[in-house]
Amino acid sequence: MVNDTLEGNRHRGIPRQGASPHALIDAIQGTLADFLTTQIASLDAVDPALGRFARTARDLVLAKGKRLRPVFAYWGWRGAVGPDEPLEPVLPAFAALELMHTFALVHDDLMDESDTRRGRPTAHRIFANQHEHARRAGDSERFGSAAAILIGDLCLVWADQLLARAVTPPSVRAYYDRMRVEAIAGQYLDVLGETQPAEWSVERALLVARHKTASYTVQRPLQYGLALTDQLDGTIEDAYSGYGLAIGEAFQLRDDLLGVYGDPAVTGKPASDDLRTGKPTALLMLARKLATPAQLAELALDPAGAVNPADGSGGPTPAQLERRARVITETGAPARLEGMIEERVADGIAALARAQIHEDARTALIELAVRVTHRPA
Amino acid sequence: MVNDTLEGNRHRGIPRQGASPHALIDAIQGTLADFLTTQIASLDAVDPALGRFARTARDLVLAKGKRLRPVFAYWGWRGAVGPDEPLEPVLPAFAALELMHTFALVHDDLMDESDTRRGRPTAHRIFANQHEHARRAGDSERFGSAAAILIGDLCLVWADQLLARAVTPPSVRAYYDRMRVEAIAGQYLDVLGETQPAEWSVERALLVARHKTASYTVQRPLQYGLALTDQLDGTIEDAYSGYGLAIGEAFQLRDDLLGVYGDPAVTGKPASDDLRTGKPTALLMLARKLATPAQLAELALDPAGAVNPADGSGGPTPAQLERRARVITETGAPARLEGMIEERVADGIAALARAQIHEDARTALIELAVRVTHRPA
Repeated sequence: MVNDTLEGNRHRGIPRQGASPHALIDAIQGTLADFLTTQIASLDAVDPALGRFARTARDLVLAKGKRLRPVFAYWGWRGAVGPDEPLEPVLPAFAALELMHTFALVHDDLMDESDTRRGRPTAHRIFANQHEHARRAGDSERFGSAAAILIGDLCLVWADQLLARAVTPPSVRAYYDRMRVEAIAGQYLDVLGETQPAEWSVERALLVARHKTASYTVQRPLQYGLALTDQLDGTIEDAYSGYGLAIGEAFQLRDDLLGVYGDPAVTGKPASDDLRTGKPTALLMLARKLATPAQLAELALDPAGAVNPADGSGGPTPAQLERRARVITETGAPARLEGMIEERVADGIAALARAQIHEDARTALIELAVRVTHRPA
Repeated sequence: MVNDTLEGNRHRGIPRQGASPHALIDAIQGTLADFLTTQIASLDAVDPALGRFARTARDLVLAKGKRLRPVFAYWGWRGAVGPDEPLEPVLPAFAALELMHTFALVHDDLMDESDTRRGRPTAHRIFANQHEHARRAGDSERFGSAAAILIGDLCLVWADQLLARAVTPPSVRAYYDRMRVEAIAGQYLDVLGETQPAEWSVERALLVARHKTASYTVQRPLQYGLALTDQLDGTIEDAYSGYGLAIGEAFQLRDDLLGVYGDPAVTGKPASDDLRTGKPTALLMLARKLATPAQLAELALDPAGAVNPADGSGGPTPAQLERRARVITETGAPARLEGMIEERVADGIAALARAQIHEDARTALIELAVRVTHRPA
């Protein structure tokens, strides 16, 4: 690679400019792997059980993922500094976002009682399986939950430690903190929505999307990348905000569609996961709004007899889920959502057009806008 | 108060030197209250449900507590800087430790399934009670757990934000991070011990005490306070370390005794909480080591018929718990633990004697060493 001339990172192929997305993701992966190796060694020295605990955390962090937050942050930074600025001093700040994201995923999966993520067992399942032969019923589940809470906590602290290794202006922490609070607040609204689906609406679902996904996944990472330059340009910040919220919402709407119509072999999650849990997504809320009375009856919150009232387990059968997905299609909500996605992609790209950023970043962000909102998983 | 001359804090009675412990605790409480008011307002502006969520977090943070970590950090700092240094610039750093502690308590209580803390319902109970009329069995518990995870997460991020308001040298973050990782690692060992009590030992229980309590509650807060001075003195740091580990372990041993023999009206926790959960504390491990075969049989891990195998609920009856507490007394373990506590208090005070610290701090730390290891709750 012609531009791969960064001292000390030649072996890892850290991209000095544009370069391929793979080179950037490899550099992030390498930074994470190096950092985690140190952390594992120090916990292993205290007690081998802690070493095993930390290695489980590492495997979750390094599992294949889209690395969207570091990628958006990278382009937010590159857009302002241009192609010649060395990446090395700020690379840990990008990688830190992925550690923070593992924190969010591990805690979210526990709250949602999801058994798989990226096609592998989730943290609480891994630990519960380690103690299958517990002496009391429920003990292995309890241990799995406790360990997952702690894995998430650890990743959040590790993210801070990795961020501290980057050379950053102090203002970066304010963006970082805002991102973290918004992710937590968005997840709270998400959880709250599931307890009161009858009071939920398209508007509230979009509010959750804005906080849980748009700001956390796109808007704040871009601004965080910009803040790394210490040359906060209000015009660029506004453009990133406009782009980030529009593309982030579109990303979430695509997520809603994948949650009902996605291919489990590609998404790594069970089919119709959102329908099973009854999550009041924008898709479901819109379907209920557009439904005829007959369709609405079919979209009733709890299909009769589907849930085991003794322990809350069970839920709709595969046939019922398929039927509900078909009814949702018939309301026209998915087509409407596709339109909302396209509108937002266009708005996001338009917001970017007004910003004075380097062309390679603009090109990359336009390409990303399309890719993340039309992804298969 | 004669020394209460700090600008802008006269109204709150921030102690400029020694002063009463109440004045320090009031200052910390005031700092927390001000900070939380701002955070609540900003979340309330996004959505009233988030405002209610944040207010619940605030009430948990501000609930009456010993504020031990801020107090130890304060004296760690005061010992090095002396009585005349203004408190104001570093006060948020002390208060931040209490926010971090709320994070730890909320997550720990969820993992331990504790229903009360400081005589009030724990976070997961508060939220579960808010959704008692959930549409599916188990939903209110699930919501309670999810909200408690998020309350803890939020407090951890808030702690960082409050710490950022203090004027601190960069090295403080390294101590802060170490403290957080140790607290998480210690809690993991604690949880792990409960799943494998048969493989546990006095030594492992003391390892947990060292990490979960000694370092997190005393040693690291003292060093963190010292790091705030930016004049890291190796002799003082070592003295704080010796004092901190000794007093911290003694603190945990007292906790073990209170967990079995404490008065629920004073501790704010149910009687014999540790015996109920079967937590392999140093007290229980020592009792098992000292027990005669007949006593050992009475201390069997699961008293027959006590646990409901269907859902893991139930546990020993009050009469069984009382019997087990009496058997533990008869092994001589509590008396042995009292001796271990006195040894550690003496060691801790001796470690302090070697340090070049200001006399008022030495006096306060000696008084604290005795008080926290002989507390009724």
